[in-house]
Amino acid sequence: MATALIVLAAGQGTRMNSDLPKVLHPLGGVPLVVHAMASGATVDPDKIVVVAGHGFDAVQKAVLAHNPDALVIEQEEQLGTGHAVLQAKEALADFDGDVIVVFGDTPFVRPETIAEMVEARANGSDIVMLGFIAADPGRYGRMVVRDGQFERIVEAKDATEEELAITLCNSGLVAADAATLFDLLQTIGNDNASGEYYLTDIVAAGRKQGLSASVVTCDEAETLGINTRAQLARAEALFQAAKRAEALENGVTLIAPDTVFFAFDTVIGRDAVVEPIVVFGPDVTVESGATIRAFSHLEGCHVSRDAVVGPYARLRPGAELAEGAKVGNFVEVKNAMIAEGAKVNHLSYIGDASIGARSNIGAGTITCNYDGFMKHRTEIGEGAFIGSNTMLVAPVTVGNEAMTATGSVINKNVPDGALALARARQETKPGMARKLFEKLKAAKAKRDKGA
Amino acid sequence: MATALIVLAAGQGTRMNSDLPKVLHPLGGVPLVVHAMASGATVDPDKIVVVAGHGFDAVQKAVLAHNPDALVIEQEEQLGTGHAVLQAKEALADFDGDVIVVFGDTPFVRPETIAEMVEARANGSDIVMLGFIAADPGRYGRMVVRDGQFERIVEAKDATEEELAITLCNSGLVAADAATLFDLLQTIGNDNASGEYYLTDIVAAGRKQGLSASVVTCDEAETLGINTRAQLARAEALFQAAKRAEALENGVTLIAPDTVFFAFDTVIGRDAVVEPIVVFGPDVTVESGATIRAFSHLEGCHVSRDAVVGPYARLRPGAELAEGAKVGNFVEVKNAMIAEGAKVNHLSYIGDASIGARSNIGAGTITCNYDGFMKHRTEIGEGAFIGSNTMLVAPVTVGNEAMTATGSVINKNVPDGALALARARQETKPGMARKLFEKLKAAKAKRDKGA
Amino acid sequence: MATALIVLAAGQGTRMNSDLPKVLHPLGGVPLVVHAMASGATVDPDKIVVVAGHGFDAVQKAVLAHNPDALVIEQEEQLGTGHAVLQAKEALADFDGDVIVVFGDTPFVRPETIAEMVEARANGSDIVMLGFIAADPGRYGRMVVRDGQFERIVEAKDATEEELAITLCNSGLVAADAATLFDLLQTIGNDNASGEYYLTDIVAAGRKQGLSASVVTCDEAETLGINTRAQLARAEALFQAAKRAEALENGVTLIAPDTVFFAFDTVIGRDAVVEPIVVFGPDVTVESGATIRAFSHLEGCHVSRDAVVGPYARLRPGAELAEGAKVGNFVEVKNAMIAEGAKVNHLSYIGDASIGARSNIGAGTITCNYDGFMKHRTEIGEGAFIGSNTMLVAPVTVGNEAMTATGSVINKNVPDGALALARARQETKPGMARKLFEKLKAAKAKRDKGA
Repeated sequence: MATALIVLAAGQGTRMNSDLPKVLHPLGGVPLVVHAMASGATVDPDKIVVVAGHGFDAVQKAVLAHNPDALVIEQEEQLGTGHAVLQAKEALADFDGDVIVVFGDTPFVRPETIAEMVEARANGSDIVMLGFIAADPGRYGRMVVRDGQFERIVEAKDATEEELAITLCNSGLVAADAATLFDLLQTIGNDNASGEYYLTDIVAAGRKQGLSASVVTCDEAETLGINTRAQLARAEALFQAAKRAEALENGVTLIAPDTVFFAFDTVIGRDAVVEPIVVFGPDVTVESGATIRAFSHLEGCHVSRDAVVGPYARLRPGAELAEGAKVGNFVEVKNAMIAEGAKVNHLSYIGDASIGARSNIGAGTITCNYDGFMKHRTEIGEGAFIGSNTMLVAPVTVGNEAMTATGSVINKNVPDGALALARARQETKPGMARKLFEKLKAAKAKRDKGA
Repeated sequence: MATALIVLAAGQGTRMNSDLPKVLHPLGGVPLVVHAMASGATVDPDKIVVVAGHGFDAVQKAVLAHNPDALVIEQEEQLGTGHAVLQAKEALADFDGDVIVVFGDTPFVRPETIAEMVEARANGSDIVMLGFIAADPGRYGRMVVRDGQFERIVEAKDATEEELAITLCNSGLVAADAATLFDLLQTIGNDNASGEYYLTDIVAAGRKQGLSASVVTCDEAETLGINTRAQLARAEALFQAAKRAEALENGVTLIAPDTVFFAFDTVIGRDAVVEPIVVFGPDVTVESGATIRAFSHLEGCHVSRDAVVGPYARLRPGAELAEGAKVGNFVEVKNAMIAEGAKVNHLSYIGDASIGARSNIGAGTITCNYDGFMKHRTEIGEGAFIGSNTMLVAPVTVGNEAMTATGSVINKNVPDGALALARARQETKPGMARKLFEKLKAAKAKRDKGA
Repeated sequence: MATALIVLAAGQGTRMNSDLPKVLHPLGGVPLVVHAMASGATVDPDKIVVVAGHGFDAVQKAVLAHNPDALVIEQEEQLGTGHAVLQAKEALADFDGDVIVVFGDTPFVRPETIAEMVEARANGSDIVMLGFIAADPGRYGRMVVRDGQFERIVEAKDATEEELAITLCNSGLVAADAATLFDLLQTIGNDNASGEYYLTDIVAAGRKQGLSASVVTCDEAETLGINTRAQLARAEALFQAAKRAEALENGVTLIAPDTVFFAFDTVIGRDAVVEPIVVFGPDVTVESGATIRAFSHLEGCHVSRDAVVGPYARLRPGAELAEGAKVGNFVEVKNAMIAEGAKVNHLSYIGDASIGARSNIGAGTITCNYDGFMKHRTEIGEGAFIGSNTMLVAPVTVGNEAMTATGSVINKNVPDGALALARARQETKPGMARKLFEKLKAAKAKRDKGA
């Protein structure tokens, strides 16, 4: 059966106190809406329709960056969840299959849970809703199930004593056949306190028409919705706790898990070591046996087996460390390949470059990749020795087993096995330092007197 | 009505196990005594008198650094809180109005609470004391209130069963008319187990004379006193938790609030983003929409709208980033203006300088501001391009749209539109690297053999 | 009475999901097995025998690195704790005295507890075992004590209702006379569900022979064993919490204790200040009154009184900071002495060097200590001034009160009081920057068009 995912992502999220639409606030390094989209992963939906409203352009951009095949449609007025889902009707006009409705501000629903909803549909329920047993049902809508049939949702404020005792509560997620869903939505009204069209009203409406309905349940934690920045911060903490536990389970060595920050998609191999106080941005892979030392910051990079990173190393997008490569302290690497066993140990900037196997890059080396208008590449061969404080003015090539002298500005290619140098000879002037010290001291005395 | 604040700050704080007087230990980046002084903010006292004792000179210095108009007087012997307050009598000889007594080791009393005490005075109570409902009254002094009149404080060890059942406990803070306060203090004795003069005894003494007394209550958390380093660490944690919650409430994006450390006076705008693991020292303002990336350290600086700082950026006092300016990794900025859209992206030291709008400062640039005796300034114009590893030997000026060549030491001014360079030409010696490698290898073999 | 410590360290620790033997996973910067060895410190054992199995070579290496006098013997098959202890018999053939058996994965047993076990032996118990009152006895073995005599251990699954009610549980640690221990071990069988020889069976066996047995109790927390990475992470957190509390107790100023990571052997003096977010590796001493600023990373170094380190300073093994020395941001120091009052404030690498008193090392200075094959030393005298971005090509010496010019490569010794410089004169080409900007702009336009 074909499936389509509708993600409701139109709200501003006033309680976030932000100009950024709520669903674009990040969790684990990616916007909330991306988590909602990813919750469909197990069923691999044929279509993904995101209903956006506030900050439409920004939401559209973020959605398409994550999945260029997604459709983003605009809900111009926010008239309730039922109205929001209806906006997707036209986009799904040719679609024949099951629709699952999820929420852009509800990032923790597991793909397995969505799969269970689809399975419940396949097993014959016309309408499937996701519920959870609430520890404290409070103001949640109660799901009324009678004789195995899910009858309706009753809001807490409208519930009888008996209904309030129900602990099975509504998460808002729905699965139904597309035609059924849109037909039912056109029958519901907005005759309620908020004057909004509620998606949940399709249950009662469907039951009236003799359709069957059932509830799939999940952990309450999966249904956590984000409405304030404090809730988002707690959600991030929960997300990180889960990623850390998963890494430990997978055999990653985390000395102080609580001080390591993962992204949505961080992949770390067994017996890799991650020291305290490390930040992973999106799109990082660290292989088994690699070591990420304290105070490192990694984004969009790949660290191979037995490579060592940090402390205080920054790997930016496009950094690729081959087996046994080493990037040390106060070193920034961007869009650059560091081949097997090559070392960049101290105080360097390596950008738009490739460094050959076993080459040693001296402290203070800089690839001067930017001329103020364009970026250029630096290519260094294998077994090269780049003296400390070498400036490599790109585009430039240094050959295999070539060498540059300390403190040289290299702007012409260096052939294999050659030595390049560009520096003045040292002159030593006896007694001159003492004279200069005297002079500077006098100048200071004069200035202090003047002041 | 004029008001005066007396801050009791004479104790050594033996349990701190420190040579530093207790009230000088920092909370949120400023000494405890400064928090106590600041608790009077809402009533804006006409006089602030700090009674110091242990470490008098250091306390005086810290107090005056925060408020040059404060009076710091010495209590030579520590004979109790009543005795301490009496030391302020002479300093307030000409003062006519209300006195509020606070404690230098009790940093969390809110200014609104002090204002309530002053209001209670205005409403006719001769003596006003601050109390709190204790979750666990234990050894706290109990406040005995009868028929709406606050009668006296009874110490837990002297209390009857009935009195022990009282949960209204004494914080120690007092508000009273200056003349009344000092008169009462001269009537109290030190006939107790410690042989000390207790400020709290003025209640019973006052009531005996027919004065009225009342209690203002606050949250127990406000009355937290610091006696050990462990308590101070907990206080810092509480302080940080409050600042983080306040920042979230104000619309600041904090990805991992628990890893961000604020100072007393940190100001961060709505929709500014603060990534994990950032430290704010005193006197920092970050405007709306600015981004502070991970591992950054800021003190005494101002970051304007849309500026980006870090990761691994250190902004020191006097750093001023204009709109859209960028300070990147392993960069230190001190007493320097980085104008609109200017960039210092990598491995640089910018001190005592100004950098014009849209200028680009290459990696490894250093403003050589110190000659061993004095500091000098570097001025860079707009739209300039400073090549990587440029040494700017101050005092020096680089003009608008000027350029410096990579690896140059610039010690003469560079006019607008000019190019300055100071470097040797590259020589390339074919085969020489291979020869050098052989020679070094042989030297190593020889050394290894000798060893 | 002579004592010997047997450390059982043969298991792989399958649940760790690691190729590293369990006892080599680090806690507080040293392997778990080292903690077990150190738990004997108070009794100062005459012999330490470590029984290793999985990863024998690696375990042996780690053990000998910590204590070259330890014996590491191999248990080729893992047939239970009793069998493991028997492997030490031959190694202790000539040993006459008490043996204490501890576990390589149980790092928190206090030396005082081991001393109590030895004392109980001295007081006449033939067999002494360590027990603890379990908060939740669950599946722990229960210690059956009757009329003051410790009779036997009963496993939870074999226990009667009455025995299950016992809360005194078995930690596994044993003390006994060597001859007695090995004799008893040869009498026990492996007739149990696992087919293993259990060390604990010596109690019942001994009692049958009329030997006396007693229980020494300790806190349950001391007996915490490590079986999974999650348990190890919790153990590290407990270890850190204890070290932080101890530091506070000792009068160290920790602003945010939870963000400071100590090693096993970190020593910090009273009134030293450690700012938030600092990592201490093994073998660090910080004297009273020194300051370690945020984001610093220290290993194998010594920081003297009133020295200031960081923020963002990395001190590596062999770094020695004398009184009042200062190492600032983005500075790495390795195997180097920084004498009284000397300063290395910014962006430098100081390795294999000594820097004399009061010398000032400019920003961007690098000791070029490595020629690709060997390391060489740099010696700088007292009161020297090293200009920014000086490259010191070792081996090289700079004299007292000597000076190097900014941006110089120094490869010849500089005598006392001399000035050394090695740089090209600045040339300034009017209008040339504007021409270059035009040219680069045109090149970019061409490239953009081509793309």
